[in-house]
Amino acid sequence: MEIMTGIPASSGLVTGPVFLYERPETAAFSTQSARTAEQEHRRFEQAAEQAGEQLEKLYEKTVRDAGESAAQIFHIHKMMLEDLDWLESISINIYEKGYTAEYAVTCTATEFAEMFSSLEDEVMQARSADVRDLCQRLLAVLSGKGAGRALTAPAVIAAADMLPSDTMQLEKRHVLAFVTEQGSYASHSAILARTMGIPAVVGVPGLMDALSDGRTVIVDGSRGRVILDPDEETLQTCEARRTAYLKEQEDLRAFRDKESITRDGVRIEVCANIGSVADADSALAQGADGVGLMRSEFLYLDAAELPDEAAQVDAYSQVLRRMNGKRVVVRTLDIGADKVPSYLPLPHEENSALGCRAIRLCFAQPDVFRTQLRALLRASVYGTLAIMFPMISKLEELHRAKAVLKQCQEELRQEGIPFSQNIEVGMMVEVPSAAIMSDRFAAEVDFFSIGTNDLTQYTLAADRLNEKVAALFDYGDEAVLRLVAHTAKSAAAHGIWCGICGESAAKTELLPFYAKAGIRELSVVPGKVLEIRRAVTQLDTTAL
Amino acid sequence: MEIMTGIPASSGLVTGPVFLYERPETAAFSTQSARTAEQEHRRFEQAAEQAGEQLEKLYEKTVRDAGESAAQIFHIHKMMLEDLDWLESISINIYEKGYTAEYAVTCTATEFAEMFSSLEDEVMQARSADVRDLCQRLLAVLSGKGAGRALTAPAVIAAADMLPSDTMQLEKRHVLAFVTEQGSYASHSAILARTMGIPAVVGVPGLMDALSDGRTVIVDGSRGRVILDPDEETLQTCEARRTAYLKEQEDLRAFRDKESITRDGVRIEVCANIGSVADADSALAQGADGVGLMRSEFLYLDAAELPDEAAQVDAYSQVLRRMNGKRVVVRTLDIGADKVPSYLPLPHEENSALGCRAIRLCFAQPDVFRTQLRALLRASVYGTLAIMFPMISKLEELHRAKAVLKQCQEELRQEGIPFSQNIEVGMMVEVPSAAIMSDRFAAEVDFFSIGTNDLTQYTLAADRLNEKVAALFDYGDEAVLRLVAHTAKSAAAHGIWCGICGESAAKTELLPFYAKAGIRELSVVPGKVLEIRRAVTQLDTTAL
Repeated sequence: MEIMTGIPASSGLVTGPVFLYERPETAAFSTQSARTAEQEHRRFEQAAEQAGEQLEKLYEKTVRDAGESAAQIFHIHKMMLEDLDWLESISINIYEKGYTAEYAVTCTATEFAEMFSSLEDEVMQARSADVRDLCQRLLAVLSGKGAGRALTAPAVIAAADMLPSDTMQLEKRHVLAFVTEQGSYASHSAILARTMGIPAVVGVPGLMDALSDGRTVIVDGSRGRVILDPDEETLQTCEARRTAYLKEQEDLRAFRDKESITRDGVRIEVCANIGSVADADSALAQGADGVGLMRSEFLYLDAAELPDEAAQVDAYSQVLRRMNGKRVVVRTLDIGADKVPSYLPLPHEENSALGCRAIRLCFAQPDVFRTQLRALLRASVYGTLAIMFPMISKLEELHRAKAVLKQCQEELRQEGIPFSQNIEVGMMVEVPSAAIMSDRFAAEVDFFSIGTNDLTQYTLAADRLNEKVAALFDYGDEAVLRLVAHTAKSAAAHGIWCGICGESAAKTELLPFYAKAGIRELSVVPGKVLEIRRAVTQLDTTAL
Repeated sequence: MEIMTGIPASSGLVTGPVFLYERPETAAFSTQSARTAEQEHRRFEQAAEQAGEQLEKLYEKTVRDAGESAAQIFHIHKMMLEDLDWLESISINIYEKGYTAEYAVTCTATEFAEMFSSLEDEVMQARSADVRDLCQRLLAVLSGKGAGRALTAPAVIAAADMLPSDTMQLEKRHVLAFVTEQGSYASHSAILARTMGIPAVVGVPGLMDALSDGRTVIVDGSRGRVILDPDEETLQTCEARRTAYLKEQEDLRAFRDKESITRDGVRIEVCANIGSVADADSALAQGADGVGLMRSEFLYLDAAELPDEAAQVDAYSQVLRRMNGKRVVVRTLDIGADKVPSYLPLPHEENSALGCRAIRLCFAQPDVFRTQLRALLRASVYGTLAIMFPMISKLEELHRAKAVLKQCQEELRQEGIPFSQNIEVGMMVEVPSAAIMSDRFAAEVDFFSIGTNDLTQYTLAADRLNEKVAALFDYGDEAVLRLVAHTAKSAAAHGIWCGICGESAAKTELLPFYAKAGIRELSVVPGKVLEIRRAVTQLDTTAL
């Protein structure tokens, strides 16, 4: 038995035989062409066209298997194929250096991959895997070689590294888990594994030397462990944990269609936090009462340029339609701090958590803000929309945000574009000042949603991403709870609802306090909805 | 008339003739020696010895003119002379390369200066000026040339750059102001100018081309302006401002020995914030009621290694003795965030303001903390000491800090070393949670001192050093004021005193609110003590 440790990339526990995944080999090629440059370039163009068609199909397959959000990567690959810098570099390699199409693609891809690797941003670094992926695809097309060894029975897929298309080309129903020697939590394969609900451990040193085809491994995606040739006792423990896990899932399923009501009849809605259009399906599948927090950042961070109004209307209305009348709270753009798209010129800030982020950034970029609000209003006719402003710290900011919204409504009215007249307008309570002043804020909004992540971080002056102060960061700290209680009380006094959309909404040990304080909505990751609903139905607030 | 703008390095307004300062020329020298290497090396050693003696004298003169803290730089120069890497580099240049002593010193100094310049830390960068200064001194000794042109009448000193020893070699009584083409707010000359109360503007582009000896300039150190050949109107405006300034200073002097009591008899102590032993004299000169905040960081940040217990006892007892029975509140080490000494291995933190700083760092470095507490206890017999812990966010932290203090007291008792039995123990209230929980904290300390700088920054989630959120940072924000009032009320309920030692203590517009809330001590920079005392005596709290 050998225990190896890596990065827990996607939770779940399985046992199965190893399937060593090796990328299909591409034929050897010469570097200098015997053909004319025109002929070589035509070969390249034909290969690019064929690769484009493959990517189109892969996109469609992935939409079915893992949702639109997961599929987007293949759209990005397709866009890369048409990138002007990329095409120019290849032309130079073919026309000026006399390279073969194969060698031209290889050289250009290496150059681009190295460029991406050298960037500091983890998301951009991950893009270098995409370039290599695309290069492999073109070489395979050029060499006329087919796919690799087929996966015909359930197995744990082990690889040095998985490119996005490697992941998607495998027969999904046979994939028990992924384990890779390289890769990070943010790599595409890790993201895909999480989206598809397949356990995964990545970044396991020495993995490929240790494994061989057909040997038994336990993959514990929650703890980041790979256990090779487990002994009988370990197998049994693992099996027992797995059985308990499956039973728990089974138990929870019974709560899918139950109402979120305590024993004594208090309604505490259990909603889902979502970060993409596809997530709305997960929210529905878990029986969420609505979407308590839709992070609109994905529209901006996944894109190569600012998403225009039409693209946003499309995304918001898709979610509203899918939620079929259930309320969807969309948080306006919350970027800055650690989340910054490449096309916005945001200089580095020393303490970005205390800097120009979220609503502050929206005020600094009024066009970005207006475009989003117009899109939200236009989408509002497709369902029950609520708009929520993040990082409000002062009354003036709320007034200003509401004024921009009003102006957008006026514009649409004049343009004759319809929008709902029943949109709730609320705010995140995540800056201490907002909680302290909640008695004043409550008169001017339709709801509060407490962002306990940031509220805790600021109240205790402890960065929630900094390990060195992790012991201080505590959702249950009395000072934080006092602010939560004060905020809920302010809301009740003004007859508005108050929810929690931070991570702590999923902490069942805090539920009695929250319920007693007057919190009437909890928004959690889709996978936690049923667990929290069960806890709500088991609660008796009169006994608190 | 020509108006030039630079960095306002030291406030004050003066008019006077220009004195172009040029560093004494050193003789030309050859690079390859005709002497034996042993002879060259002896020349170097003799020059180093003579330079060491000069530095000793300069240190003593500076202690008299500008205080110990300002003089320390010449101790650092002397230490550089004895640095092993430096000596080894010079030996190699003389013995292996056959250089003259002059050229060996020049090459080594250039290499060291470039190394310091390449560092990111501004304090370390400024050290490259020290290396050049030391090199000049050694070359002057080696060439046997004397000092430069003497300053015989009051003048504004203008230079391309001022090395620390340039600044101190000038006859202080004749120096009206400094203006330099290079330099930063953190350069030694700027620091010295501030310490000596001489107006200074540094980093003025094109300065040396524009000025010539004897022409009239106005130096406005507060606004960072140098006005060459001012016209009559400007001269008069300047004179009027200067007269008003002097009259105000005269008016304020009347409050030097007055009691800090409002019209209706409420005592609100006006104390000084100090950052060095020499600052205690400024505090006394301004008639401060005590020291409300002694920042102990200077002991750590100015030093090349961790200050030992004896050095700290010495510094604290000097301040306690000078303050002659008036209370001195010493804040225990508050480094981390933007203040980090080179000898402590503190990795970069993404949001350092929310990171491992102050008391958090002291818990992580228990020996550093214990040494400081022992030193404070040992010094306590020389005056009235109060110990204050910074960045307390939770009760457990306060308990832990008090436990370490108790342990140190126990140790000293066993070692038979005396310490005062009447030391007040208090805490900074600067993290929102501490203010929110002040009703609980008040039962366990002798006093609160509200750090409004950090409290405002965290409560509004707005970095006070980040220009982009400067509009949000406001000491007068209602949420911040509510926390101040709650803290003062908690203190009153437990019969302990509550002061403010943030910048806002010097904001007279906030004084009525603070007084009404129950704040009974304000600690400000020494230069503001009299202004605040005047405001206190003019206040009637019954009218609020």
